[in-house]
Amino acid sequence: MSNNILETFENPKIDRSYSINFEIPEFTSLCPKTGQPDFANIEIEYIPDKLCVELKSLKLYFVSYRDKPGFHEDLTNQILDDLVALLDPKYININAEFNVRGGIYTSVNVTHEK
Amino acid sequence: MSNNILETFENPKIDRSYSINFEIPEFTSLCPKTGQPDFANIEIEYIPDKLCVELKSLKLYFVSYRDKPGFHEDLTNQILDDLVALLDPKYININAEFNVRGGIYTSVNVTHEK
Amino acid sequence: MSNNILETFENPKIDRSYSINFEIPEFTSLCPKTGQPDFANIEIEYIPDKLCVELKSLKLYFVSYRDKPGFHEDLTNQILDDLVALLDPKYININAEFNVRGGIYTSVNVTHEK
Amino acid sequence: MSNNILETFENPKIDRSYSINFEIPEFTSLCPKTGQPDFANIEIEYIPDKLCVELKSLKLYFVSYRDKPGFHEDLTNQILDDLVALLDPKYININAEFNVRGGIYTSVNVTHEK
Amino acid sequence: MSNNILETFENPKIDRSYSINFEIPEFTSLCPKTGQPDFANIEIEYIPDKLCVELKSLKLYFVSYRDKPGFHEDLTNQILDDLVALLDPKYININAEFNVRGGIYTSVNVTHEK
Amino acid sequence: MSNNILETFENPKIDRSYSINFEIPEFTSLCPKTGQPDFANIEIEYIPDKLCVELKSLKLYFVSYRDKPGFHEDLTNQILDDLVALLDPKYININAEFNVRGGIYTSVNVTHEK
Amino acid sequence: MSNNILETFENPKIDRSYSINFEIPEFTSLCPKTGQPDFANIEIEYIPDKLCVELKSLKLYFVSYRDKPGFHEDLTNQILDDLVALLDPKYININAEFNVRGGIYTSVNVTHEK
Amino acid sequence: MSNNILETFENPKIDRSYSINFEIPEFTSLCPKTGQPDFANIEIEYIPDKLCVELKSLKLYFVSYRDKPGFHEDLTNQILDDLVALLDPKYININAEFNVRGGIYTSVNVTHEK
Amino acid sequence: MSNNILETFENPKIDRSYSINFEIPEFTSLCPKTGQPDFANIEIEYIPDKLCVELKSLKLYFVSYRDKPGFHEDLTNQILDDLVALLDPKYININAEFNVRGGIYTSVNVTHEK
Amino acid sequence: MSNNILETFENPKIDRSYSINFEIPEFTSLCPKTGQPDFANIEIEYIPDKLCVELKSLKLYFVSYRDKPGFHEDLTNQILDDLVALLDPKYININAEFNVRGGIYTSVNVTHEK
Repeated sequence: MSNNILETFENPKIDRSYSINFEIPEFTSLCPKTGQPDFANIEIEYIPDKLCVELKSLKLYFVSYRDKPGFHEDLTNQILDDLVALLDPKYININAEFNVRGGIYTSVNVTHEK
Repeated sequence: MSNNILETFENPKIDRSYSINFEIPEFTSLCPKTGQPDFANIEIEYIPDKLCVELKSLKLYFVSYRDKPGFHEDLTNQILDDLVALLDPKYININAEFNVRGGIYTSVNVTHEK
Repeated sequence: MSNNILETFENPKIDRSYSINFEIPEFTSLCPKTGQPDFANIEIEYIPDKLCVELKSLKLYFVSYRDKPGFHEDLTNQILDDLVALLDPKYININAEFNVRGGIYTSVNVTHEK
Repeated sequence: MSNNILETFENPKIDRSYSINFEIPEFTSLCPKTGQPDFANIEIEYIPDKLCVELKSLKLYFVSYRDKPGFHEDLTNQILDDLVALLDPKYININAEFNVRGGIYTSVNVTHEK
Repeated sequence: MSNNILETFENPKIDRSYSINFEIPEFTSLCPKTGQPDFANIEIEYIPDKLCVELKSLKLYFVSYRDKPGFHEDLTNQILDDLVALLDPKYININAEFNVRGGIYTSVNVTHEK
Repeated sequence: MSNNILETFENPKIDRSYSINFEIPEFTSLCPKTGQPDFANIEIEYIPDKLCVELKSLKLYFVSYRDKPGFHEDLTNQILDDLVALLDPKYININAEFNVRGGIYTSVNVTHEK
Repeated sequence: MSNNILETFENPKIDRSYSINFEIPEFTSLCPKTGQPDFANIEIEYIPDKLCVELKSLKLYFVSYRDKPGFHEDLTNQILDDLVALLDPKYININAEFNVRGGIYTSVNVTHEK
Repeated sequence: MSNNILETFENPKIDRSYSINFEIPEFTSLCPKTGQPDFANIEIEYIPDKLCVELKSLKLYFVSYRDKPGFHEDLTNQILDDLVALLDPKYININAEFNVRGGIYTSVNVTHEK
Repeated sequence: MSNNILETFENPKIDRSYSINFEIPEFTSLCPKTGQPDFANIEIEYIPDKLCVELKSLKLYFVSYRDKPGFHEDLTNQILDDLVALLDPKYININAEFNVRGGIYTSVNVTHEK
Repeated sequence: MSNNILETFENPKIDRSYSINFEIPEFTSLCPKTGQPDFANIEIEYIPDKLCVELKSLKLYFVSYRDKPGFHEDLTNQILDDLVALLDPKYININAEFNVRGGIYTSVNVTHEK
């Protein structure tokens, strides 16, 4: 996943630390072993520095995972990496809760701080 | 958004630190990219110094966002800036939870302290 | 609101710090701008010193607000002032949650400590 | 209320600190102003020292309040005093939540520690 | 209650501190004053040292209380003493919640640590 | 239980501490005393170092317990040992909640840290 | 229990069938075998004919049971008989749910129709 | 209560049977025996014929009860009578649930059909 | 089980059909195959004819099952038979819900009508 | 409101009666008396005959109410009329629950059947 879909805009209040939260209940990707679809609920919290991520591009970014295969652990870290590269935020946390597969529920939780 | 709608009255107990809370479940503005309406639930908590905001003018102030476009992050900071400029409060926090758009729930949380 | 309605009795255990709580779900007053009725749920917690407030007089005190106009912030502070003047308690907190008006929910929270 | 109803037995494990809890949902007494019945739910937690209170005598003790008038604050402190005089416990807390009267809910919370 | 019913097996991971929990909702004994049955829900948490208690013998141990009289406080401490004598655990806590008797709910909570 | 069923893949983000969680509500094994089936809900949380466990092999690993007898305490420690031997993780915790047997609910909670 | 406490007023809308409901959560009487207090929650629904029962007298009527002994079945029928004799209603139902005694919950449900 | 406050407008779809519902959680009147305030939650459902009741006038109509004494049964029937006289509806039901007084909860339910 | 424990009193309102309900959450007996204790929650509803069952004797009757072995189906029918022989009621229903054994929940529901 | 925004597509299963449901939580229009915004949650259930309404056009149709004044009763009937004219459905029901205004909640429920 390259981050050429994601767009930014200038943080409208660069001298104030405040938090922005996203919940994406409609995330879907493909299982790298079976090719079958995976589904997850993804929550993002970040404190912006100079840049904010634009919401519509964020939606398109998540839609672009629809046809990509990936391990749960890989996808979650990749999303974090893309957002860190794009925004260089003061703080960001991503929690991904995947739907049950083979009788097992999986979730992955990653954090980056400046 | 200029704050010429908002009115104040003198804090009736200027020597006591106490908190005032508002919940505005009917906030609506326009998306700056599509022109379509956005909706949010906004919660405000502040500790007044010399001035309190009058409730009816607060209602009209939020109604005035109805035809204005704005990013979620921008609007939330703008509301904080207007109330800080108007009231110069000891403390104020604003939490805005926007309705789902493109499958994504967004919330923004900003704080100002003297 | 003068506190000539409120009555006290001697704290039956003056050497012990303990808390007394009241919840008054039937508070009603008048809006100072429109003359229309306002409604609130009021919670009081206090630690008595020498005096306790008598329950029936407290009820009559709150009934006496029925025909009085007042801003939410003013009323809540006035109740605190009356109880502090009456009881001189070690600690008292009042939380007033007003019913929705103009699409906005308001609550006011005030505390006094010796 | 004299505590000649209450009986004790020796703490079966005097060298161990442990807690005993009672909930009495059927407490009833009389209002000292109107003579009408009051009702409360009473919770007791204590850490015994040398003595424990016997359960049946505790029931009869609470039944003996059925025909006695008393302010909420007075009754709650009286119960604490009787149990402290009887048991000399390491710690005891009593929380009494009285039924609504005149549109007002009242609760009283008292603690004693050695 | 002698602990000749209870059996042990060697802790399968003696060098690791971990906790084992039991809930026994079907505990029943006799009231020492009236001979009538008492009922309780008992929860046990312990960190084993060299020995673990075998589950079936634990069940039979609790069944053996069926015809024994005992005060709530005594029974709870006795169970703790038997398990401490048997297992010499690093930590053990027992919480016993007895069914209502005479309108009073009773619970007893005891802890032992090495 | 040998861990020759479990497979690994390289941690896709080896320089970042993050947590992975599994919940396995369909675990079943055999009682070592009666040969009857036991059932448990197992939760695993770990922070990977160099390796992650592959999800499908994890499922097969748990399926392989279906015909194996084992004490609750033994099985839980064995799963921990297998995953520690396989992954050498920075941190791992396993919580196993077994279905009621003989009127007793049992759970076992084990942790390993580097 | 004689019904000389209960008072009536004329049904304000005698030509309309409508229902009136009362819930009395503070009913208490005495056990005819032990003399110990019983407690119940009583619900009444009736369709008035020419008369309605006055609320304050209804309260005093129920308070008058405080010192009277009576079987659950007897008390519930007696309340129905008193209200039928007083009001001659088109329909009346009484449901009395008594607090647990000796591990047994009892309720009695009686109906009268013209 | 005269109905000269209530206003109507023409049913916009006179040839269709449909229902309109109101909930008035802020109803308050006076007790005819003590002069103290009563509070109720009132629910109205009606099927209009030629006329609908205008909402703002309905609000003022209920506010006008604020200083009027009345039995629960009388008030509920009076509201029904006023609305029937005003609207001549195909069907109307009013359910009034009054706040607890003297430990008793009261509700009144009245219906009118053409 | 002979019914020489159960006592009756005369139905206080023999000419009125009304229902009496009991819930007995503390029923316990023995398994006829293993001798181990069984537990159940028993609900009884009956419409009395000439006689009612006295509550304390009902409690003792159920306590007497404590040391008796019996299949679930047998016990439930036996209780029905004893109460029918004692009371000759117009209608009686018994529902017994036994605690889980071997992963299976059992309930038995029996009815008798004149 | 003209229905030139709404689009249709052919019912894919014309010989089967089945229901389609929509919930529109973001409906907003203007009050015809004050010009202030109204808000409602609208639920639609219909059984299609030959035609179904297209979802995106339905959304735009509801957005088009944003600047139109209308009584609650009028708007609800207008929506029904538009959908009946468009779809000629076997059955359609619309339930509109408007936000509280002046302390009063209003809902309107309309149905059309062939």
